[in-house]
Amino acid sequence: MQDTPNLLLITDVPGYAPQISRLMSMMNYARFTTLRSVEGLTTEQLDYTIDAKSNSIGSLLLHFAAVEVAYQLETFEHRDLNEEEMKIWGAALELGDQGRDQIKGNNLDYYLNILSEVRGKTYDVFKTKTDDWLYEEYPFWQNQPANHYFMWYHVLEDEINHRGQIRWMRKRLPV
Amino acid sequence: MQDTPNLLLITDVPGYAPQISRLMSMMNYARFTTLRSVEGLTTEQLDYTIDAKSNSIGSLLLHFAAVEVAYQLETFEHRDLNEEEMKIWGAALELGDQGRDQIKGNNLDYYLNILSEVRGKTYDVFKTKTDDWLYEEYPFWQNQPANHYFMWYHVLEDEINHRGQIRWMRKRLPV
Repeated sequence: MQDTPNLLLITDVPGYAPQISRLMSMMNYARFTTLRSVEGLTTEQLDYTIDAKSNSIGSLLLHFAAVEVAYQLETFEHRDLNEEEMKIWGAALELGDQGRDQIKGNNLDYYLNILSEVRGKTYDVFKTKTDDWLYEEYPFWQNQPANHYFMWYHVLEDEINHRGQIRWMRKRLPV
Repeated sequence: MQDTPNLLLITDVPGYAPQISRLMSMMNYARFTTLRSVEGLTTEQLDYTIDAKSNSIGSLLLHFAAVEVAYQLETFEHRDLNEEEMKIWGAALELGDQGRDQIKGNNLDYYLNILSEVRGKTYDVFKTKTDDWLYEEYPFWQNQPANHYFMWYHVLEDEINHRGQIRWMRKRLPV
């Protein structure tokens, strides 16, 4: 925590618009807690599933990256993943049986590198955006109006939700 | 969702300062998803614990209210809970054995009423606050500077984290 100045401030981030900075402050803190929740896990622990319905910790990490990619496409390009992108991210987006089948055998660095690469791309684009962009709205879930700020809030909110599950599983890993 | 206008917008809330409004938009959406995750649960289901380490869904609901009370005192009065307040909220704040012993036998309305009462108090005070107040900062965890915005972000972040666990448990309730 001491190595991360401004970790506990929702505030300006140099080089970014004021409201985008506040969103990024929240994304950064959420990611900090995610990383802390998986520190030191082995490949076997990342692959472990508690029961037939549960997702592995590794698959949830990849899910965070996949959701972020989906919202990059949604908010930067206003489109869904294409077939090619679904081949890469589909299992991580949808989890369940697909996730359990396809996401395994990777070490922690594998997941952390993908998370960091995807986040880097988000922030590169955020640098080019104004706060007005953050407040652009259009019909979204069930045709209700949503703005870009909400969509990115949902990205971090989904990460925190599953991080709660990661913490739960970590406490129950076989010794 | 259709009954809740502005649910998917991070935006102004009439009667509140602009940045406080944005925080409230996020708190409102987090609470909406919490309420949806516990809809229709019986007292027995709210009391159920999956294993010896787990908190019941009911105790997590009361935890949300207790954390919010703790941050009301922190940010509105800059103090911890006193002895009297700890008698009321201690078990819900600390969970674990205390929570399992003391929080049970309540129906869903019991929890929802407390959540709504505590939230109402928060918003009554928010109405009197400026955005400058939201950015006031002082040394917090590990003596790192935190602002009030971060502290309230943490309140909703803690709720989302445990809501992830509520969803997990709900899927695994005995039939």
